[in-house]
Amino acid sequence: MKSYAILGTGALGGFYGARLHLAGREVHFLARSDYEAIRFGGLTVDSGGRRDRLNVPVYRCATDLPRCDVAVIALKATQNAALPDILPPAIKPDGVALVLQNGMGGEDLAASILGPDRILGGLCFLCANRVAPGHVAHLDYGEITMGEYRPDGSAGGLTPRLHEIAEDFRAGGISIKEIENLAAGRWRKLVWNVPYNGLSVAFETTTDRIMAAPAMRALAEELMREVAALSAARGYAIEEAFIRKMLDDTMRMKPYRTSMMIDHAEGRPMEIEAIYGEPLRAVEQSTELAPRMWLLYRALRALEAGRG
Amino acid sequence: MKSYAILGTGALGGFYGARLHLAGREVHFLARSDYEAIRFGGLTVDSGGRRDRLNVPVYRCATDLPRCDVAVIALKATQNAALPDILPPAIKPDGVALVLQNGMGGEDLAASILGPDRILGGLCFLCANRVAPGHVAHLDYGEITMGEYRPDGSAGGLTPRLHEIAEDFRAGGISIKEIENLAAGRWRKLVWNVPYNGLSVAFETTTDRIMAAPAMRALAEELMREVAALSAARGYAIEEAFIRKMLDDTMRMKPYRTSMMIDHAEGRPMEIEAIYGEPLRAVEQSTELAPRMWLLYRALRALEAGRG
Repeated sequence: MKSYAILGTGALGGFYGARLHLAGREVHFLARSDYEAIRFGGLTVDSGGRRDRLNVPVYRCATDLPRCDVAVIALKATQNAALPDILPPAIKPDGVALVLQNGMGGEDLAASILGPDRILGGLCFLCANRVAPGHVAHLDYGEITMGEYRPDGSAGGLTPRLHEIAEDFRAGGISIKEIENLAAGRWRKLVWNVPYNGLSVAFETTTDRIMAAPAMRALAEELMREVAALSAARGYAIEEAFIRKMLDDTMRMKPYRTSMMIDHAEGRPMEIEAIYGEPLRAVEQSTELAPRMWLLYRALRALEAGRG
Repeated sequence: MKSYAILGTGALGGFYGARLHLAGREVHFLARSDYEAIRFGGLTVDSGGRRDRLNVPVYRCATDLPRCDVAVIALKATQNAALPDILPPAIKPDGVALVLQNGMGGEDLAASILGPDRILGGLCFLCANRVAPGHVAHLDYGEITMGEYRPDGSAGGLTPRLHEIAEDFRAGGISIKEIENLAAGRWRKLVWNVPYNGLSVAFETTTDRIMAAPAMRALAEELMREVAALSAARGYAIEEAFIRKMLDDTMRMKPYRTSMMIDHAEGRPMEIEAIYGEPLRAVEQSTELAPRMWLLYRALRALEAGRG
């Protein structure tokens, strides 16, 4: 049975780590600001009307972690500068890293530390908040699309180790979709993240108000098409029906504060590079294919710099 | 016969001032960096294959200027902080100011200094460069759309003084269109200036390349429609045919480096507030009507700040 190190015990790491723990897996948590709360009060997870208070092994320093089979990178992408220090000590010599982050760049960085053959990634469709130190509220969703990383973005295929990890998450009640090509999956997820995260921050608004203002809604749709154009330039076609579905789903959603909006409101750095900078730099002719996304990227960087 | 003070002897002030001078009008030039060159070598204007070297009265300080009937504000909008000092001494008690600037805000500022009843404005369609100190090269065009300023943006009508000034320019070979509503004219001019100035700077490109890249061309068109939406919100309808004409004209133009692009390349401040900030702030619901223009505005401000 695989052991898991959760690197970063925020809402995402806390939620998935707790599910693995509840499924009986060996799970070790690396926590920074929430270390004391978890060490002395346990990890608390509210989900589906139920509250679990879990007594879990928690560590402040990565060097104190026992080496695990799987290191789950659950930090925000903005904290990735810590990876070279915390990733190697958390992982067995034949262990793998599972990058559960928004946007792009996380797997590349992990691969530069561990080598390209030991990296998997996942796209989390999770709505959860850290409501207090050591206390996570799971609001909705939770599915992960998971795949093998390949440095050239080719299909890593459906490997036994991918399936084993997926099964561990499934044992914790998490729906997992195993995909052949992780890079293609990351591009698809950007179709939603690029318009709604950035526009919600740039115009201090919510998804429903973006969809209600015709010019803003049209801009969101154009941004989706730009992501699709960038994705196509990388060899991953995104079909029109997927864009329509993202728009329709968003129309039906309750007014939603995006993760970037929450980060910005709470004074945390935003995942601007992971969601905008990395994808734009990944395509040579991106200024011609995605001029609106470039403007949004620059406007967000300016917003962030102005606050700092 | 009216006397003219040219406030700002760059390409624009030098060109129009020279034409008034050649038409026999009394013209006085305020120059800063080019003072020495004009004082000792004359004002040189190349136009239509002909070179004029004019011995004109030039001044370094506004307080040395004789008071004139018309003060032509030919500064870049970015230099308008100088107006409270240089405008009053240049003008007779019953004199008027003629604001020949890009974008918006110039007339409002002049009105705050002189009162609202003494302001006219003009939109210059001029292609001219200052090629050396005291030396202007007129490349193409030159028409001015001229009208009476009204603080509420209503029609100032076709007044005798507007016509007199227009006739003086015409005597110098300048084509002048007298318009009833200056504010409406300013909005129409923004239909071209907003997309091409900003995009050329943000993406370091020229008008032909903007028109050649489909996503960029579409964005230019959307920006035009946003300007039209803002203009309509202020009560000035801009017809679809005008937008089509701007697009068609731009398609037929030679590759063109916009004035903002030249300013940026030469390290001068860009007229970002006059072309973007002022119009956006003039309409309450501008984020909903013009989100792309807001993004461009912010990207440009960031570019400028990064350089400073």
